[in-house]
Amino acid sequence: MTAGDVVAAGAKPATTVFLIIRRMEASLYAALAGLRQRYHVLDFFASTDSLPAFLSSAAAAVASGAASPPRAAVVGGAGPARVDAAFLDAFPSVRCVISLAAGVDFIDLDECARRGVVVANSGRVYSADVADHAVGLLLQVLRRVSAADRFVRRGLWPSAVAREAAGAAAGEYYPLGTKLGGKRVGVVGLGNIGSLIAKRLVALGCLVSYTSRRARGDAEVPYKYYPSVRDLAADADVLVVACALTKDTRRCVDRAVMDALGAGGVIVNISRGGNVDQAELVDALREGRIAGAGLDVFESEPNVPPELCDMDNVVMTTHAGAFTNESMVDVGDLTVANLEAFFAGKPVHTPVQLPQAVKKAVVVP
Amino acid sequence: MTAGDVVAAGAKPATTVFLIIRRMEASLYAALAGLRQRYHVLDFFASTDSLPAFLSSAAAAVASGAASPPRAAVVGGAGPARVDAAFLDAFPSVRCVISLAAGVDFIDLDECARRGVVVANSGRVYSADVADHAVGLLLQVLRRVSAADRFVRRGLWPSAVAREAAGAAAGEYYPLGTKLGGKRVGVVGLGNIGSLIAKRLVALGCLVSYTSRRARGDAEVPYKYYPSVRDLAADADVLVVACALTKDTRRCVDRAVMDALGAGGVIVNISRGGNVDQAELVDALREGRIAGAGLDVFESEPNVPPELCDMDNVVMTTHAGAFTNESMVDVGDLTVANLEAFFAGKPVHTPVQLPQAVKKAVVVP
Repeated sequence: MTAGDVVAAGAKPATTVFLIIRRMEASLYAALAGLRQRYHVLDFFASTDSLPAFLSSAAAAVASGAASPPRAAVVGGAGPARVDAAFLDAFPSVRCVISLAAGVDFIDLDECARRGVVVANSGRVYSADVADHAVGLLLQVLRRVSAADRFVRRGLWPSAVAREAAGAAAGEYYPLGTKLGGKRVGVVGLGNIGSLIAKRLVALGCLVSYTSRRARGDAEVPYKYYPSVRDLAADADVLVVACALTKDTRRCVDRAVMDALGAGGVIVNISRGGNVDQAELVDALREGRIAGAGLDVFESEPNVPPELCDMDNVVMTTHAGAFTNESMVDVGDLTVANLEAFFAGKPVHTPVQLPQAVKKAVVVP
Repeated sequence: MTAGDVVAAGAKPATTVFLIIRRMEASLYAALAGLRQRYHVLDFFASTDSLPAFLSSAAAAVASGAASPPRAAVVGGAGPARVDAAFLDAFPSVRCVISLAAGVDFIDLDECARRGVVVANSGRVYSADVADHAVGLLLQVLRRVSAADRFVRRGLWPSAVAREAAGAAAGEYYPLGTKLGGKRVGVVGLGNIGSLIAKRLVALGCLVSYTSRRARGDAEVPYKYYPSVRDLAADADVLVVACALTKDTRRCVDRAVMDALGAGGVIVNISRGGNVDQAELVDALREGRIAGAGLDVFESEPNVPPELCDMDNVVMTTHAGAFTNESMVDVGDLTVANLEAFFAGKPVHTPVQLPQAVKKAVVVP
């Protein structure tokens, strides 16, 4: 099946939009049914082509008149597409790009700004779920829950008790956890997600501080501000990385930050793998220079450093922070609402500020 | 080494107390160093005898004058000792029993009351850690964290993506989680721990209700009260079991409660395994009549139903809810403070109400 076939199969006298999400994301695809009801969809999920072949086929369909020129692109956050100059050159009719993720690191915002292409992201749709996941990962690392679960599943609990009953030397059969309450948690990036993480951790008895592009006033947030990640780490037991991945934040958690955090420190990353120097993280964990890590994201997903797979003080998930049944429904609704707004000539509901706009108003979040 | 040797090795002209904790609990033992500095300790942890042999040896040491009659017993919550009529008959000099656990189901409270033996437990020392653990287990089950961690460690993430890249049929490579926010959570037992669980879950956006021995007034707690576990379950998405194990609560979460909770429901148990009908829980999970479970406790620890070890919707830990480095320090301090109070003729700091007292004041918590 080619992109042209996909269009022909669902042909309606309607606006054409791209939908480029990974073929494994069936739940997300199901949640986007409203899109397919309303528009001609150039549908990568439903095609069997490679992405380059799919895009060539789509271009041919447009050139032949089998599809009208696509006016928007709805693109998943976790690859495969990059919305860059080449894509925008190939489909100059695309005037609106909607990221199904909070992050837009796969969209060349400079190119979009230069061409006047509107960019929207998923706004706050995922924020609570990602914040919950950050808290869950932290609790798991501190309380050793995944490690305990493996210990139980391997049948090691009865044998540890049996060894004791048989008079084995005294010893801790299972390591103690660490209390969450009272921990000093530094949040890197106090955006939508970081703010919700901070709020949750305060309710759980943590002492929250943060670093962010700018210090908030005391009236705005009650947390102590640090001007750098390193300063934040030096006064923290835990770092939770919640910032967007940009050229300024790439590997902002580096060896110096890990050393400032120290041997008792825990790092949780629910943002993007690129925000943490992963090779240094592996070394720091292996050498006991930090105490543990909860990682939902990695530098080169789906690849995970094999060293981490043998560590009981590490918990790993599959970039799953945002993905719940409930958030899928919400992102489907938001995507349709954003497209409807754009095609009605109105502002999208969850716009991404483009570079020029940021430069004009650098003190506004 | 016998109990007599242990006493002789640390002989001081001081009060004698029993210390009976499991030999595997090295961290707890370390935290109780203050005990060994202040008293003659009849020390099961440090002996190599079986418990019956240890107790016989202790009785002989007392009879021979090698040890003064023990005046108190400090006993771990997770076996091996039962403080029952036989124990109290063998050591009638014991006038104070201190549980190192919140629970006292291994102490015969009727016998203690009849003999005027003071009983203390661990008070609120563990409450925050157990409440955190309950929240952690719930997040794990809803967000499938342990299952995802196993998926990553087994190297299944890259192969799932590779299958997609090779043109495999579309499909979800990893199941979606479920959002915590907005869930109706029923707390079974609104004591110290249940109250802290409720507070945490409200902060995480859940709608909390409860059942307990008595309904609290609206001014006391803002949660809706249900008169039975079954009624609570019928209006809940999640049940968190946080009640003491008594003859009234044993298997209070039974098949009828599970069916009332329903196929989307999750059960978290951080109290005692005996509060849940474990065979029915296994059946309900296997048959999809409930959606998942987070279990820190089991009916016959350390034995775990083998069926649970193959279920990705179950998270299990080793009765670890109370055990953190921090709580160990706290329980060591509290135990010394309770013994000092008792030997000074003052009330203990964390008394357990004995049966007569409960009958006199049944409406007081």
